[in-house]
Amino acid sequence: MMFLLTLFTLSFFFSSSDALDFCVGDLSAPQGPAGYSCKKAEEVTADDFVFSGLRATGNTSNLFKIALTPAFSSQFPGVNGLGISVARVDYPVDGRAPMHTHPEAAEVFVVIKGTFYAGFISSAYKFYFKTLNEGDIMAFPLGLMHFQINIGESEALAFSFYSSASPGVYIMDNAWFTNDLPTDILQKTTFLDPDQIKKLKGLLGGTN
Amino acid sequence: MMFLLTLFTLSFFFSSSDALDFCVGDLSAPQGPAGYSCKKAEEVTADDFVFSGLRATGNTSNLFKIALTPAFSSQFPGVNGLGISVARVDYPVDGRAPMHTHPEAAEVFVVIKGTFYAGFISSAYKFYFKTLNEGDIMAFPLGLMHFQINIGESEALAFSFYSSASPGVYIMDNAWFTNDLPTDILQKTTFLDPDQIKKLKGLLGGTN
Amino acid sequence: MMFLLTLFTLSFFFSSSDALDFCVGDLSAPQGPAGYSCKKAEEVTADDFVFSGLRATGNTSNLFKIALTPAFSSQFPGVNGLGISVARVDYPVDGRAPMHTHPEAAEVFVVIKGTFYAGFISSAYKFYFKTLNEGDIMAFPLGLMHFQINIGESEALAFSFYSSASPGVYIMDNAWFTNDLPTDILQKTTFLDPDQIKKLKGLLGGTN
Amino acid sequence: MMFLLTLFTLSFFFSSSDALDFCVGDLSAPQGPAGYSCKKAEEVTADDFVFSGLRATGNTSNLFKIALTPAFSSQFPGVNGLGISVARVDYPVDGRAPMHTHPEAAEVFVVIKGTFYAGFISSAYKFYFKTLNEGDIMAFPLGLMHFQINIGESEALAFSFYSSASPGVYIMDNAWFTNDLPTDILQKTTFLDPDQIKKLKGLLGGTN
Amino acid sequence: MMFLLTLFTLSFFFSSSDALDFCVGDLSAPQGPAGYSCKKAEEVTADDFVFSGLRATGNTSNLFKIALTPAFSSQFPGVNGLGISVARVDYPVDGRAPMHTHPEAAEVFVVIKGTFYAGFISSAYKFYFKTLNEGDIMAFPLGLMHFQINIGESEALAFSFYSSASPGVYIMDNAWFTNDLPTDILQKTTFLDPDQIKKLKGLLGGTN
Amino acid sequence: MMFLLTLFTLSFFFSSSDALDFCVGDLSAPQGPAGYSCKKAEEVTADDFVFSGLRATGNTSNLFKIALTPAFSSQFPGVNGLGISVARVDYPVDGRAPMHTHPEAAEVFVVIKGTFYAGFISSAYKFYFKTLNEGDIMAFPLGLMHFQINIGESEALAFSFYSSASPGVYIMDNAWFTNDLPTDILQKTTFLDPDQIKKLKGLLGGTN
Repeated sequence: MMFLLTLFTLSFFFSSSDALDFCVGDLSAPQGPAGYSCKKAEEVTADDFVFSGLRATGNTSNLFKIALTPAFSSQFPGVNGLGISVARVDYPVDGRAPMHTHPEAAEVFVVIKGTFYAGFISSAYKFYFKTLNEGDIMAFPLGLMHFQINIGESEALAFSFYSSASPGVYIMDNAWFTNDLPTDILQKTTFLDPDQIKKLKGLLGGTN
Repeated sequence: MMFLLTLFTLSFFFSSSDALDFCVGDLSAPQGPAGYSCKKAEEVTADDFVFSGLRATGNTSNLFKIALTPAFSSQFPGVNGLGISVARVDYPVDGRAPMHTHPEAAEVFVVIKGTFYAGFISSAYKFYFKTLNEGDIMAFPLGLMHFQINIGESEALAFSFYSSASPGVYIMDNAWFTNDLPTDILQKTTFLDPDQIKKLKGLLGGTN
Repeated sequence: MMFLLTLFTLSFFFSSSDALDFCVGDLSAPQGPAGYSCKKAEEVTADDFVFSGLRATGNTSNLFKIALTPAFSSQFPGVNGLGISVARVDYPVDGRAPMHTHPEAAEVFVVIKGTFYAGFISSAYKFYFKTLNEGDIMAFPLGLMHFQINIGESEALAFSFYSSASPGVYIMDNAWFTNDLPTDILQKTTFLDPDQIKKLKGLLGGTN
Repeated sequence: MMFLLTLFTLSFFFSSSDALDFCVGDLSAPQGPAGYSCKKAEEVTADDFVFSGLRATGNTSNLFKIALTPAFSSQFPGVNGLGISVARVDYPVDGRAPMHTHPEAAEVFVVIKGTFYAGFISSAYKFYFKTLNEGDIMAFPLGLMHFQINIGESEALAFSFYSSASPGVYIMDNAWFTNDLPTDILQKTTFLDPDQIKKLKGLLGGTN
Repeated sequence: MMFLLTLFTLSFFFSSSDALDFCVGDLSAPQGPAGYSCKKAEEVTADDFVFSGLRATGNTSNLFKIALTPAFSSQFPGVNGLGISVARVDYPVDGRAPMHTHPEAAEVFVVIKGTFYAGFISSAYKFYFKTLNEGDIMAFPLGLMHFQINIGESEALAFSFYSSASPGVYIMDNAWFTNDLPTDILQKTTFLDPDQIKKLKGLLGGTN
Repeated sequence: MMFLLTLFTLSFFFSSSDALDFCVGDLSAPQGPAGYSCKKAEEVTADDFVFSGLRATGNTSNLFKIALTPAFSSQFPGVNGLGISVARVDYPVDGRAPMHTHPEAAEVFVVIKGTFYAGFISSAYKFYFKTLNEGDIMAFPLGLMHFQINIGESEALAFSFYSSASPGVYIMDNAWFTNDLPTDILQKTTFLDPDQIKKLKGLLGGTN
């Protein structure tokens, strides 16, 4: 009897600390610099911590011949506040992750299937590259441009892991050529020729 | 000519900032609370960022029928300072990751092959569990006990990712039954019976 | 007169920065990964920073013969966002803090009264222990299992301090034996015998 | 056509990650330990990232002969969550920033116009000082008392930068002599004479 | 036999991760922004985590009638990297902790014996104060000036806990009146009268 | 006499905490993920906190018509560990900061003289731009590409501030066209035409 009382006493602060074991994102509540607000602890279930959206191959019928399927806090709220997330990346033959960065995260890339030529460029402008085979992993530091190309004979598969629940995927081509960033401004700040810029804006849907 | 001069001027501070793009661990230099000291930038090569130690199946001939092959900063110094690391985990039929925590990291577990029964326990003592199939991912919050069991008919493979370059792998059985922690102290602090404790110490190599 | 104007000008941004001097938790507002939302600065009083809930001895009539009275952000919202909290711990003769961790915090334990045998286990599975007398302090690193036992002739008192406003208190016995975690799963992941598991579930209120 | 589909697919998670590129403060929403809640991404415009409130000289008709015009997250919500902010500081001849700290930030002080005598005191109580000329910068570590005095013949201008979006500006004189902190308590805790305290309370508007 | 092999394999990375369970400070090795370098894991013993220097009452024969005995990383290297530290504070009758801050930490103050009048001043210049009795705790936010006065009839004892392994103790009087900070500079930046300044410099050992 | 003893006692831990008030970088000692090792406290002088290298206009005779003169931890070790740094940026007429990021920092840009057209691109690929006049400030979030162009009739001057002591300056053109990154790889990962790539490699000194 006393024993039950005690269990109750103890559980008082345990349940309150629960919410800080994890903070499953409530996508409808206010978001702050540290991430989404937390779903109420009593509404959290095991399903909040499991994501099946990476089971299937993504649609690779695009310019880059690639499908990056994210499990970031916006798709998988269970990682909100945990400082980690993942994406499945499918590459058909000659598919590639174009030159891109993750503004908020470092990455570890894991080759599940296939052979890749991968590299990154440091802020000292040194180019680091390597051929990766099945089972190899490669680290890409925070904010540095990197790419991977499927140089094998068949479809390739990789998982990318990030040191943030919302790493961002920031493709230079998309940043420059899919919006209304004016051609003359791009020319002045990249030294690309106007024809080249217009050609890629045409390809990627940009205007101006 | 002026141009060359300028390139030189610019490269002065770029190369100095290089060391903070990344901090490849120098395992022979002093280590601090934030990780290993950095290998000199000029000695860093692409090989420092690639690890092939996860290609092969690990040795699963042990009590737990599991092989966890780590790529933490001690094995893969390229992730030092990046706040992320990975391990390959092989499970024969009925193999399992026993009840354990990672004292310094949250985990995202990715099923590459097989079917798992996995779960964790919150600090409010609620048990969260789920069956995981190929391609599923599961998040395990910082410091909470969790496990995975291969419930399929064949060998299973997973990759675990951690929000730290040195997450620690902390198996309760190993912590209690592989060292000289006295049986009577274990009894007083776990309420396990002395016979049970002695039996597991025998199994795992503990003394006292 | 100009002077008053100026005071007003200055106070404009001072009062706005006030809210970031501290963030007294509003337990009814959304919570995020960094903690509770802040109570409005104008509603904060000195009472928000003082807690008297640790004055009295807690109820030690339980299995562990211990009373841990927390002053975490859920009980003492004044520490929300400050990265620190405290608990009072009362131990009758032979009372003990059972094997437990704090998933989100390191601890400093201070002996106010009595004599303790205390220890922790590192993730290299080394056992560190020591006898503590009045006035001694002991540090327990983040996420590692530790315990304290009152080995003196009389009641003992300690204060535990944590490097988080919501450290969590995570007792292995409670995690395993107070909920519906199935006996066969516990057996597979801890190698404890079913009888032992059932005995402790009986003692601690677990099912399955 | 497929291409458009793909663009749509891609943009799905890009826009969701957008909110974590930045977190423009919504001053009307709940605030947490990490700062203000984020304005909805779709309502954010370029104007949120630009602040013109530092164009004009501030009002220096005050005791300290100084005008500190802040662009902290409360005035310039665009820096919320970015860990940086700025203030314009105008000093007439003999104007000075009185002895103060920033409780939440380190500072870099940049002399745009004029000559200053500036210094800070370490927590080892060593006094560090220097004369600063146009173009010089000086670093003031987190939480240490510092000051700057315009020792030139004409108006001086500086910009101060802080390692926080809400650094706080904490002037010792204002903390002691502008509120109801009782004279006898001040005397006991500062060893200042009651007459001195009363004189400064009179000057700065304090009571008790 | 295979089993022994496996144990060895496992222990390989466990022992390496050990060093990041904790980082006992090596006071003779280089120090970095995150704290002291770590003592080699194999040289760490339980003694590194226990400190007995707070057992005895400190020497209170000084101007402030107080003895603050620290267990910071410099005295107690076991807390290096743990983000927490403690100090014992003894107060004779009328003893007081003078107006001070901790530049790097928030504080939780615990009354073990006696009655205190304690307060702090926010950066909005609001004064928060309270009478504290045995068992009461009070939180002092990062970087804000605070004080405690023993207003009881007998000796008082408290423990102060800090959210940093090296919080700093920064007494305004000591910062202003124990070094060579020139009187005229102090006058210009504090508006204290030269006589008052000289009197306190005399009392505290300052020059100039 | 007792008084002198006491001062000595107190100064014992104050001087030890000094090193964590600041951590002036020792460029010759090991560097870690948190920055450079600290110069010994007793060797630190006021000169370590003051930098005069930003007084003069930098050399703008280069392709970009810009001079960025950094005061990062490598040039100004006084900011090591403070989480903040600054650079002076000189722009002749039509000078521009080309498309670039700072992999480790957010930026606040302050217009001291002149008129700029400035913008950045979010990871949702939205283009944010604005005309900036003297006294205006603009925030650039972590890791996002941005640029500034002097659109005025005369030389322009700005100071850029960063939320890191070593923010990195990462110009896309330099990353792609100043090193040995092969033309065919650039073509595959940027969709730029080989002629365009070769033209820019010629301009910037790249090979392959």
